[in-house]
Amino acid sequence: MELSKYARKLGENASSAARVLRASSEESRNAALDALSKILLKDAFAILSANAEDVEDAKAAGLSAAMIDRLTLNPHRLKGIARAVDEIAALPDPLNKLIDKKRRKDGLKISRVSVPIGTVLFIYESRPNVTIDGAALCIKSGNAVILRGGKETLRSNAALAACIRKALKAAKLPEAAAQVVSTPDRALLDLLLRDDAHIDLVIPRGGETLIRAVVEKSSIPVIKHYKGVCHTYVDKTADLKKAAAILLNAKVQRPSACNALETLLLDKSLKASAGTALLKALADQGVGLYGDAASRKLSRSVKAASPSAYDTEYLELKASVKVVDGVRGAVDHIAKHGTGHTDAVLAESEKVQQAFLAGVDSASVMINASTRFADGGEYGLGAEVGISTDKLHARGPMGVESLTTYKWIVEGNGHVRK
Amino acid sequence: MELSKYARKLGENASSAARVLRASSEESRNAALDALSKILLKDAFAILSANAEDVEDAKAAGLSAAMIDRLTLNPHRLKGIARAVDEIAALPDPLNKLIDKKRRKDGLKISRVSVPIGTVLFIYESRPNVTIDGAALCIKSGNAVILRGGKETLRSNAALAACIRKALKAAKLPEAAAQVVSTPDRALLDLLLRDDAHIDLVIPRGGETLIRAVVEKSSIPVIKHYKGVCHTYVDKTADLKKAAAILLNAKVQRPSACNALETLLLDKSLKASAGTALLKALADQGVGLYGDAASRKLSRSVKAASPSAYDTEYLELKASVKVVDGVRGAVDHIAKHGTGHTDAVLAESEKVQQAFLAGVDSASVMINASTRFADGGEYGLGAEVGISTDKLHARGPMGVESLTTYKWIVEGNGHVRK
Repeated sequence: MELSKYARKLGENASSAARVLRASSEESRNAALDALSKILLKDAFAILSANAEDVEDAKAAGLSAAMIDRLTLNPHRLKGIARAVDEIAALPDPLNKLIDKKRRKDGLKISRVSVPIGTVLFIYESRPNVTIDGAALCIKSGNAVILRGGKETLRSNAALAACIRKALKAAKLPEAAAQVVSTPDRALLDLLLRDDAHIDLVIPRGGETLIRAVVEKSSIPVIKHYKGVCHTYVDKTADLKKAAAILLNAKVQRPSACNALETLLLDKSLKASAGTALLKALADQGVGLYGDAASRKLSRSVKAASPSAYDTEYLELKASVKVVDGVRGAVDHIAKHGTGHTDAVLAESEKVQQAFLAGVDSASVMINASTRFADGGEYGLGAEVGISTDKLHARGPMGVESLTTYKWIVEGNGHVRK
Repeated sequence: MELSKYARKLGENASSAARVLRASSEESRNAALDALSKILLKDAFAILSANAEDVEDAKAAGLSAAMIDRLTLNPHRLKGIARAVDEIAALPDPLNKLIDKKRRKDGLKISRVSVPIGTVLFIYESRPNVTIDGAALCIKSGNAVILRGGKETLRSNAALAACIRKALKAAKLPEAAAQVVSTPDRALLDLLLRDDAHIDLVIPRGGETLIRAVVEKSSIPVIKHYKGVCHTYVDKTADLKKAAAILLNAKVQRPSACNALETLLLDKSLKASAGTALLKALADQGVGLYGDAASRKLSRSVKAASPSAYDTEYLELKASVKVVDGVRGAVDHIAKHGTGHTDAVLAESEKVQQAFLAGVDSASVMINASTRFADGGEYGLGAEVGISTDKLHARGPMGVESLTTYKWIVEGNGHVRK
């Protein structure tokens, strides 16, 4: 099929499916998810065979070991994917919730209820689990979805798409409720990103380059996060034992996560011995430290920071360090170098905590806790749609609720406006 | 000053002011509004003199009478503008509201509180009252604002800007909290629309052409409504007396409003005499009717509809008419021609009401009431920021709450992630 015709079909089919989903029952949406979870295991052989071919090609093409790992499915991982679908099915229905309701003196009733957004375009890279995750989150929330994965996973995604179609059919929902794009052509993606008549929201998941390209091309609203340069500020009133444990957790537990610590800010009024001890704790765990002159005086394991250090998201066992002038200095540094993701203050003084909280404009602000908590699961949102460093609609970790909007309902009995 | 330098200054100054506003007290924001209301009346002579010059130029340039009316201020209108500021000041503080709060078993407290969005760019045409309205709404909600009015109102806006600066100064808030752009240069606007580092939200108010141009140029999220082709469907179960009153109110009370009726959909099972009576009631009020063959059979006052009739927002005493196959036919027509603004069903059957409600994906859905109710004031939102036909962040009439976002606050006591 011609590319522009294919793009139009994807949009139109999604839009028609969205009309059906909007009026669908919770039972039928959950039935589709229950079926999907079972079909994934029943069709495991087909999925794993398709995936093995993708992996073979990826190896032949010389892709990195990390990339190949992200791409690879095995029975254990497939079970995990099916379990995630079960967990999404078990969430409370995010639709038709009464948000607020009032009754005017003249008897007119005005209420707001949650409804699906419509059609969502998911754009992602090589993880095939996102295909199922994205489909399940959208089916749960009554949205049609177009799933566009990376070119490395075409065969895996085609096999997963077949499972999704079977599940939708079993639940008597339209198969176009979740369409998997069958070509990695960039030109097709560009066409979809301009189809604001049929697509209501774009969610890109992946590296900053991918996301910036999507934002540049899209005429549809995009919810995204570019990067997470997360700060932790240690005030002179911090409890040092807690501080050491929190810093290690924030940096070392999973350095590749977007909520991992990247920059440590030390209060200049903190005792030198305390600063030295905290830096040593990090260095002892193999964290490479890059800092300003003042922090280098505290520990010889701190190397000189390059000019771009404070804007760097390392995503590995490295961190930037800076000595700042109290909470005010920390707030100023974060205003300049922060990415609005997650920042923490370690202080026993409530005044300092409040000054940090009021001054730092980030999606999540942590008080005496690890930045690693910024996560949909940890926040009790059930399943995570993504993380947003945008300010509109959804901010920080997003649950399935972020895939809904609302509708005003006005009920009268012949009411006219005066 | 060079244009690009001016644009950068506007963005940077707004951004700095936003940092101060974010941490400002409700008292100081309200004090600024109280001062503004008083200064507007105290400086009435300067404002009205500047406005008279704008009006004189507009007349000399041959602007339409409607345009000149929108531009014109007089003591009565100025009092109305000052009163609107008082009303905004009297609204409850939209900031620092606890949205939700939970305490995990491990003692970690997770809450969400409302915070300002940051910097808002208001773009509008010739009404100088929007300058004050936009400034007041943003000050109330702790946002910095850049106000960019039409070229016809430069002198009026400069006089109003002087009042705003005085008011901010009196309340010890930064004068850059509300900046009025001093040049109508389109190139400057284009620069502002790309400054996503400093500006968080764009709200254009005006005609469809203005809004489409803004969306095309902006790299910043835009909240908008293009147009309101509002439908009212009269079911065979409708109470005809209520229906006549509602239709007249929806079409005749204020035809220039975006929530006025544009298309009347008549159930084909409605008695012919009933259809004829409803069309006569409209024609008797001078409403020009344009319809399909079936509706022309009901009344000779219905002229043949042009192919674009059902996509037309008349904004005057004209309406399109179509006979449809029950509520299903109405829902299908609205899916094709609707603008997602406001649509109404007139029916006594609850089943029909529910089918319409589930099938029509519009910001406001009315049951046995006039579409004219779709309005921030009527919904009890206090002051209206605008109307959105977008689905993200804010939908339908927007109150001052729509100028806020939220922040996650996580309070621990040395908590680390397992």
